[in-house]
Amino acid sequence: MLIGKVTGNIASTIKHPVYEAQKLLTVDILTPSRIPTGESVVAIDSVDAGVGDLVLVTQEGRSAMAIVGKTEVPVRTAIVAIIDKIEIPPS
Amino acid sequence: MLIGKVTGNIASTIKHPVYEAQKLLTVDILTPSRIPTGESVVAIDSVDAGVGDLVLVTQEGRSAMAIVGKTEVPVRTAIVAIIDKIEIPPS
Amino acid sequence: MLIGKVTGNIASTIKHPVYEAQKLLTVDILTPSRIPTGESVVAIDSVDAGVGDLVLVTQEGRSAMAIVGKTEVPVRTAIVAIIDKIEIPPS
Amino acid sequence: MLIGKVTGNIASTIKHPVYEAQKLLTVDILTPSRIPTGESVVAIDSVDAGVGDLVLVTQEGRSAMAIVGKTEVPVRTAIVAIIDKIEIPPS
Amino acid sequence: MLIGKVTGNIASTIKHPVYEAQKLLTVDILTPSRIPTGESVVAIDSVDAGVGDLVLVTQEGRSAMAIVGKTEVPVRTAIVAIIDKIEIPPS
Repeated sequence: MLIGKVTGNIASTIKHPVYEAQKLLTVDILTPSRIPTGESVVAIDSVDAGVGDLVLVTQEGRSAMAIVGKTEVPVRTAIVAIIDKIEIPPS
Repeated sequence: MLIGKVTGNIASTIKHPVYEAQKLLTVDILTPSRIPTGESVVAIDSVDAGVGDLVLVTQEGRSAMAIVGKTEVPVRTAIVAIIDKIEIPPS
Repeated sequence: MLIGKVTGNIASTIKHPVYEAQKLLTVDILTPSRIPTGESVVAIDSVDAGVGDLVLVTQEGRSAMAIVGKTEVPVRTAIVAIIDKIEIPPS
Repeated sequence: MLIGKVTGNIASTIKHPVYEAQKLLTVDILTPSRIPTGESVVAIDSVDAGVGDLVLVTQEGRSAMAIVGKTEVPVRTAIVAIIDKIEIPPS
Repeated sequence: MLIGKVTGNIASTIKHPVYEAQKLLTVDILTPSRIPTGESVVAIDSVDAGVGDLVLVTQEGRSAMAIVGKTEVPVRTAIVAIIDKIEIPPS
């Protein structure tokens, strides 16, 4: 799983039917110190996240499908939590 | 899932039988700001996308198989939506 | 599987129900010579690991789900062992 | 899926029994413009490809297993087509 | 699948029960020309490989599980063959 920050959303009219009711968000991937890694993904939202939220992203199809509640939905990337705090004690 | 732009198509005579009826497109992966990441993939089309279209690409075998409607088709990468608009509010 | 070092933990109030009882740790990925690769992940803990521990991390959803004991938990990354020693004979 | 060029083959006497009858080829991954990405993989052949052939490579275990016709064969990477032509219209 | 060279082994007392009887080896990933890519993994051994051996590594959970003979073992990376020879004809 990865830490990310929601940056925007995607509008799409022509899409595979199983995506009809899904909210698609763009997410920048961050390090635990919240530095952008340069990687971005498109994720399905399962926790009502919004732009600016720090989130936990899973990238496993089987998991992502379980989250949206239908195994036939072809998703691989999903937002599974809104992060309140990342605690990194000094080493 | 990733954002991509369709750049071309692939012709192949000798192929595994399960690919017979599938349209294969080359896709450049972009950031949400539409900057090419340098990564390219070959994807099966499920939404009648064409060269130049901005698309949503999934890279999960199980999902991709569900999309083409046969679980025995050995695909990992599929185009699942044509993107109308990517909204990235200023942060 | 990858070698990692636990660096911190993540607190989250709003999350997908299946994550309720799970401990989420941030892990820096290391080479076998214990040099950080620059990659970091968020992992579910299955062996009561703590900050500073050298650990073995698996990144396969099916496996990670088996480890937390419920196949419906959408996890892809899990800590499966605390490493005592990495033996690299001189080549 | 990725585009690749077959560069050689691998000989192995001691191997897991399920690999006995499989032909293993080394493949350099290319961009759609046929520029090497620097990545190389070992793939099981399903279309009688040879050194120098431009091929389509899938990297999904479930798919690769389906291709070799036995789901118990532990493969993740397989050659699924020989590419005749990649058409990239000028943009 | 990838080509690798076994570099060492990992000792672990505290681990998830399913790992009890498994031998864990550190493996440097190489190109077909045997140049290290800089990537290293921890793999479960299925062919009695030792330090210095050139090996074939699979990174697919389902496959790796099949190799160790129990589908409930949470492994993603396994050594499936010892390589005798890599033949790369001059191009």
